[in-house]
Amino acid sequence: MEYRTKLEHTVPAGIGLCVGLDPVVEKMPTRFKSAKSPLLEFNLDIIEATADFAAAYKPNMAFYEVFGAEGWRQLAETIKAVPAGKIIIADGKRGDIGNTAKAYAAALFDGLGADAATVNPYLGRDALEPFVADADRGVFILAVTSNPGGADIQNLQANNKPVFLHIVDLARQLNKNRNVGLVVGATKPEDMLRVLDAAVDLPLLIPGVGEQGGEVQALKSALQGYRASALVNAARSIIYASRGEDYKLAARQAAEKLAGELAA
Amino acid sequence: MEYRTKLEHTVPAGIGLCVGLDPVVEKMPTRFKSAKSPLLEFNLDIIEATADFAAAYKPNMAFYEVFGAEGWRQLAETIKAVPAGKIIIADGKRGDIGNTAKAYAAALFDGLGADAATVNPYLGRDALEPFVADADRGVFILAVTSNPGGADIQNLQANNKPVFLHIVDLARQLNKNRNVGLVVGATKPEDMLRVLDAAVDLPLLIPGVGEQGGEVQALKSALQGYRASALVNAARSIIYASRGEDYKLAARQAAEKLAGELAA
Repeated sequence: MEYRTKLEHTVPAGIGLCVGLDPVVEKMPTRFKSAKSPLLEFNLDIIEATADFAAAYKPNMAFYEVFGAEGWRQLAETIKAVPAGKIIIADGKRGDIGNTAKAYAAALFDGLGADAATVNPYLGRDALEPFVADADRGVFILAVTSNPGGADIQNLQANNKPVFLHIVDLARQLNKNRNVGLVVGATKPEDMLRVLDAAVDLPLLIPGVGEQGGEVQALKSALQGYRASALVNAARSIIYASRGEDYKLAARQAAEKLAGELAA
Repeated sequence: MEYRTKLEHTVPAGIGLCVGLDPVVEKMPTRFKSAKSPLLEFNLDIIEATADFAAAYKPNMAFYEVFGAEGWRQLAETIKAVPAGKIIIADGKRGDIGNTAKAYAAALFDGLGADAATVNPYLGRDALEPFVADADRGVFILAVTSNPGGADIQNLQANNKPVFLHIVDLARQLNKNRNVGLVVGATKPEDMLRVLDAAVDLPLLIPGVGEQGGEVQALKSALQGYRASALVNAARSIIYASRGEDYKLAARQAAEKLAGELAA
């Protein structure tokens, strides 16, 4: 799996930093309000500032789509600008039936050139197969999400285990190309431990540290001994570490600090 | 709810035709291969040909996103071109945590100007709230999807009922603005009957007739006596009714036939 190879190369310890590229113009230094391509220009600065410490970048597609075609253009340009060796995760949480899923996979992998994508498992196996069919791309399937309402469906008990563990089973079955991983929120340590136990060796994408409240030390303890690599995503706590003109330095320092804590 | 009013105005009987705008260049008449904006141009022809019979149009976003920013532009132009009084459903099946869901809702409702959207419930209540917050827009929550793998998660039994009925409960709770509906595939009549029984009066979006094999007469029997409106979606069986130069006439006739069967 391409992104595991890359990840293992970049972060030997197996826990890597993923920087979430969730650009919101109102949160950027004031001068971006009049920029021609504010999302792209801000991202280029953030990528440059954090590249020494990031194993991966994860643009959240909603923050581009809100600007329509122009936003999509800046998303595509952002992805092109990420340095070689970094994993690019298109975070769109897509999920649809066969021929539609195939079009989404083509949009993300061929069109945007992402190395990996997040996908939603509610539509089941045949909705995920078009994504995992490309052995060179990684697919992170949502298992446990970091928001409070995630439990509404994910924690329903079915056959003596929560729905999210059924997703883990499905993910393992789909992993014939060794390119399937899971999304597990850092805000729910108990659920995460159950996922780790069942996932065995699937790579993880872990959102929810930083602004969302997940604690790094608890996360590291949970991951101790886990056999596969994990990407820990932080967005707001890094990219908006400062909203002043020192935002690049602040982002660099925040990335360095978190990457150091994860590697320690 | 705006789309119910529109729907009731257009289709007094309560069952309306929704035409799926899923443009695939390879399936269009040959000359579209050299068109400047093939998705848009084809859609304009289809809309013109079917407008006498369609209550709603449902562009499936994947088929636009596969062309990147240019595809998104043609999607936006398509939506602008739909005549007043028709319901436009942006079919993107989005689902994400709070602030991201808010950005998706803005992208679809404010950016694209859709009247309604399809959303995925796997992330739970707080991921759906930003969509339903706008009382003027409709939100169709996925309950039972038309693909075989849909059963993997949707039909897991939790607390003596399938997950999809927990979604129906959630949808009813979220319906304070009277703008929530459900997606229920026509290919699964038994599950549909259970949804109808539990949904009571939520509007329905029903894909899966035509190419996907759902039968119109069985569907009509199931819907007999249901208190709310239903939009029955057909895409391929209408828009690709002919792949020759008579595609407009063929689409018109297919739409007229299906709308007639639904209204009979």
